Amino acid sequence: MKKTNGEKEKRDTKTKHPSRPWVDEDLKDGTDHPLEEEEGEEEWQGLEENVAHVPFTCERYSEAEMIKRSQTFYELLNKRRSVRFLSDEPVPREVIDNVIRTAGTSPSGAHTEPWTFVVVQDPNLKHKIREIVEEEEEINYKKRMGDRWVNDLKRLRTNWIKEYLDTAPYLILIFKQVYGRLPNGKKKTHYYNEISVSIACGILLAALQNAGLYTVTSTPLNCGPQLRVLLQRPANEKLLLLLPVGYPKRDATVPALTRKPLEDIMVFM
Amino acid sequence: MKKTNGEKEKRDTKTKHPSRPWVDEDLKDGTDHPLEEEEGEEEWQGLEENVAHVPFTCERYSEAEMIKRSQTFYELLNKRRSVRFLSDEPVPREVIDNVIRTAGTSPSGAHTEPWTFVVVQDPNLKHKIREIVEEEEEINYKKRMGDRWVNDLKRLRTNWIKEYLDTAPYLILIFKQVYGRLPNGKKKTHYYNEISVSIACGILLAALQNAGLYTVTSTPLNCGPQLRVLLQRPANEKLLLLLPVGYPKRDATVPALTRKPLEDIMVFM
Repeated sequence: MKKTNGEKEKRDTKTKHPSRPWVDEDLKDGTDHPLEEEEGEEEWQGLEENVAHVPFTCERYSEAEMIKRSQTFYELLNKRRSVRFLSDEPVPREVIDNVIRTAGTSPSGAHTEPWTFVVVQDPNLKHKIREIVEEEEEINYKKRMGDRWVNDLKRLRTNWIKEYLDTAPYLILIFKQVYGRLPNGKKKTHYYNEISVSIACGILLAALQNAGLYTVTSTPLNCGPQLRVLLQRPANEKLLLLLPVGYPKRDATVPALTRKPLEDIMVFM
Repeated sequence: MKKTNGEKEKRDTKTKHPSRPWVDEDLKDGTDHPLEEEEGEEEWQGLEENVAHVPFTCERYSEAEMIKRSQTFYELLNKRRSVRFLSDEPVPREVIDNVIRTAGTSPSGAHTEPWTFVVVQDPNLKHKIREIVEEEEEINYKKRMGDRWVNDLKRLRTNWIKEYLDTAPYLILIFKQVYGRLPNGKKKTHYYNEISVSIACGILLAALQNAGLYTVTSTPLNCGPQLRVLLQRPANEKLLLLLPVGYPKRDATVPALTRKPLEDIMVFM
């Protein structure tokens, strides 16, 4: 396939470029879709031949600036907490657009960009999502946890009720596209789609914190299929995370948790 | 288990707190370790009973500030590219410490913080890593790709040679802790360890970009076990990603790729 100009052509080229190191690894370990060698190879061939390389230039900070910037960014993100008590105060739509754009700058396996961010503002739709999530949660609590546990939770006011699904001005449901389609209609494996979309969500969380918005990272129990149908997403998309987004309530509380110190998470050699 | 004071006790409480919404989802879909119900329940019970909640307060920006901050952050991260041509110029260690600290602020399933960041600066160790990665890559290229493909790659100067593994001042190897140990020595499932560590890597990529450092997100082919042994990581840790970190070379190039526009990644309802 020869490269021509025009946006569509760009997109083809792009979505088929292999970020080499991504494409190879043992998919047994971690990712959710087996590598089909034929496809893999075919895919790569089309690609490398099509991709032009261009010079890369970037901003350069002084060492002092780098140290200061990295320290300031750490302090900003270290203030992030998962907040389950969100107010219904509206949030500017433009901010939501910007944080999703930011998440979209994430790297992805073979540059497939295998993510769909469904942003739900409609109150009726939010309530339907809440009903689906709470119904599954209630079943889960009662079936799997037993009475004693349920009572403990009641005592702690922690149960299957997820009020934030109604109150948060936005719910962001993040879907991973587990495969795509080649121009010839053949299935195109999305290597590392789950790792890629999770990395994009990490960047999204950083963008939310930078904007002064809060959320709780959640993976609703067994709701993926129902929510996918409710939100009319195609069969190649699977729900990965649900993020309610807004401002904390005035009386919001968080668990008294600490984070591991650097020496517990970093090994220097 | 009653809560007492002291850092160690804090840690126990903390590592056992369930971020509720994380703990439930269908592990069939995506994560790499089956939920063992007994353990799950036991774990949760210990936790909720121990966790105190505290009031949460946070900074509040004006809407104009939020829009500006979110726009500026998008522009910063949109300049990020995966760079395979890294110079050997040294990078301040303090910046590396700060970006790892920042990654450590990520949320994680049941707040297990199941990540280990191995930072390799030692030239001999970097070279050993390069030898392991390139050996596997060469096998992969020759076995799986066939002569025509290998020749295409030669023509494109893209092959199994990964010079950046020697030249980058630091290699960050990110391991996911697939399980931990309870005080009683029992295995403690780390729910969503791969999603959690990938989210932390997204935050790490944002921190690197903010500091003016570059990398290429890589998952070395079949090298996990060998690299784990080389770096003396325990059996519960699996290599997820390898990030060479440094400054781009003066003559660095990147593939001419574009990113999907907002309307291709966001659905608003």
